[in-house]
Amino acid sequence: MKFATLQDHTLDGQLLLVSRDLRRCIAAGPLAPSLLHALQHWTEVEPALQARYAALNAGALASQPFDPRQCAAPLPRGPQWCDGSAFLNHAHLMAQAFNTPPIPDLETIPLMYQGASDDFLGPHADVPLPSEADAIDFEGEFGVVVGAVPMGCAPAEALAAVRLVVQLNDWSLRAMGPREMRTGFGFLQAKPSTSFAPVAVTPDELGNAWHDGRVQLQLEVDWNGERFGQPHGGEMSFSFGDLIAHAARTRRLTPGTLIGSGTVSNASRAAGSACIAERRVIEIIDRGEPLTGFMRFDDRVRMEARWPGAGAGPFGVIEQRVVRAANAGNAEPAA
Amino acid sequence: MKFATLQDHTLDGQLLLVSRDLRRCIAAGPLAPSLLHALQHWTEVEPALQARYAALNAGALASQPFDPRQCAAPLPRGPQWCDGSAFLNHAHLMAQAFNTPPIPDLETIPLMYQGASDDFLGPHADVPLPSEADAIDFEGEFGVVVGAVPMGCAPAEALAAVRLVVQLNDWSLRAMGPREMRTGFGFLQAKPSTSFAPVAVTPDELGNAWHDGRVQLQLEVDWNGERFGQPHGGEMSFSFGDLIAHAARTRRLTPGTLIGSGTVSNASRAAGSACIAERRVIEIIDRGEPLTGFMRFDDRVRMEARWPGAGAGPFGVIEQRVVRAANAGNAEPAA
Repeated sequence: MKFATLQDHTLDGQLLLVSRDLRRCIAAGPLAPSLLHALQHWTEVEPALQARYAALNAGALASQPFDPRQCAAPLPRGPQWCDGSAFLNHAHLMAQAFNTPPIPDLETIPLMYQGASDDFLGPHADVPLPSEADAIDFEGEFGVVVGAVPMGCAPAEALAAVRLVVQLNDWSLRAMGPREMRTGFGFLQAKPSTSFAPVAVTPDELGNAWHDGRVQLQLEVDWNGERFGQPHGGEMSFSFGDLIAHAARTRRLTPGTLIGSGTVSNASRAAGSACIAERRVIEIIDRGEPLTGFMRFDDRVRMEARWPGAGAGPFGVIEQRVVRAANAGNAEPAA
Repeated sequence: MKFATLQDHTLDGQLLLVSRDLRRCIAAGPLAPSLLHALQHWTEVEPALQARYAALNAGALASQPFDPRQCAAPLPRGPQWCDGSAFLNHAHLMAQAFNTPPIPDLETIPLMYQGASDDFLGPHADVPLPSEADAIDFEGEFGVVVGAVPMGCAPAEALAAVRLVVQLNDWSLRAMGPREMRTGFGFLQAKPSTSFAPVAVTPDELGNAWHDGRVQLQLEVDWNGERFGQPHGGEMSFSFGDLIAHAARTRRLTPGTLIGSGTVSNASRAAGSACIAERRVIEIIDRGEPLTGFMRFDDRVRMEARWPGAGAGPFGVIEQRVVRAANAGNAEPAA
């Protein structure tokens, strides 16, 4: 199934079923008013949703054109957002460029930070941020949405709890990140609201592209209309099963919890990067200094995971513009 | 006003108004089915809640005895949970004992981590954890619940957004914490579900004990029936206004967001501590090694902030037992 969320005046929006070709949609109906509600009542509502999705694809229902510009994030708020850094190529590049102390257990225990999950941005929403001096960056990622996961579950069991796969942009402020890392308390100001592609899909919709607990697709990233990278999701060093199990080590996960892959990153330089920070560390390694600046207000970023050789991908497109936040003053001393 | 939440089969529970003496309660009524709903519609519902609270205290309404054992956390789920470490006495002790690298800007920028907010524990709920080897610890804290806070607001404006004050136990697993700090990604496995005292109060309920953006009360902490500490909340090095503004630096906060003080800690050794880790670092500093172990299964912890010289405090009591989680297996390699 493919789902999107129509932005309305509620916190959770209105759940839509989207046709396989992303051209048509219908309201999911009273059984599942929102995606969060559907995830919390999955066993009860899934058969009716499947039947309605089949009828939509068969053209047997009166449907509307699907307009991603009307969409919020598939989950406008989630119970929890835990983002990994599961492409170790990225971590190795960062360590090499900055000559930082080794991260403990980097190869065996996933890196993961806790993000805010109450205020996700839709695929075409402007991104309000306070200052260009914060070093605005994007991070193209894949993610999964899980059902209930018990505390202490193993990776295989965790992988079976995946209900949906998503594509996202983990907005990052690089001026805050290193300071927050040195405190040991992790990212907070460095991670403003995360954005999501309009369509969340059940794993079966990905066919062979959902394999080994990884999204086996290229993620195309364009910055101001120019190709920035198209790394492939299959090079994840940990699977989503590993990441979910890591998050559930000392807590149960409630339905709708989101787990992210971290920025998609490939060993081949030809793949480019899914975030500016990575291109800059490659420049530092290759040429001794970073040459690429961070984003400016009015800059745009576009991200789309694509089927090999085909047109549109399964998740639709993130296409956003960075804007200056209305209330950009701040009384806190600069770091 | 004083609020509690009756545990039921919904995610948000049923909102109760609790009498000033914590003896009686009534349902808040259809205007405010849950505390989260009330916070999201505060301007509309506050006058009716105030009138109902006044009638409850005047004995003018049919009420029930207040039973904290029936209570969930005041907010069983919140949109966001950001916990500071605003008592620098604690940070200085930890740094002295472990001789760690200096934390950047420690005296001027609050430490704060992002916690999970979807699965808070009530004041008498058992605390399921996977292993005693994880080094189970409590952290007695105060916290605030805010209304909407715009991105980039200053501390004074942020303080005015405080709707409620709470008392909490930020459960911590010390075997995970240092490793997660060294990764720079911050706490995740080290912070299982947080617990809350039954009663959330509007700041006016605290009278002079809400002053300077701090809770001016002692927090009494007992471990297995023995006094462990009674540090005073007034020694916070940053105010709650500072902490809220820090959290809102690059994001807006949605109504119901929780901001914590970090473990309450005083310079006077006579105050004791509100967490085991701090007692252990004092033992390391004074005697060269830690003498106190961490918690064992079936251990109990009790926390209550008290009015000076009087009986019960404003928030009621946290009194919990640690138990082994049902599904304590874990396939992740040990750190």
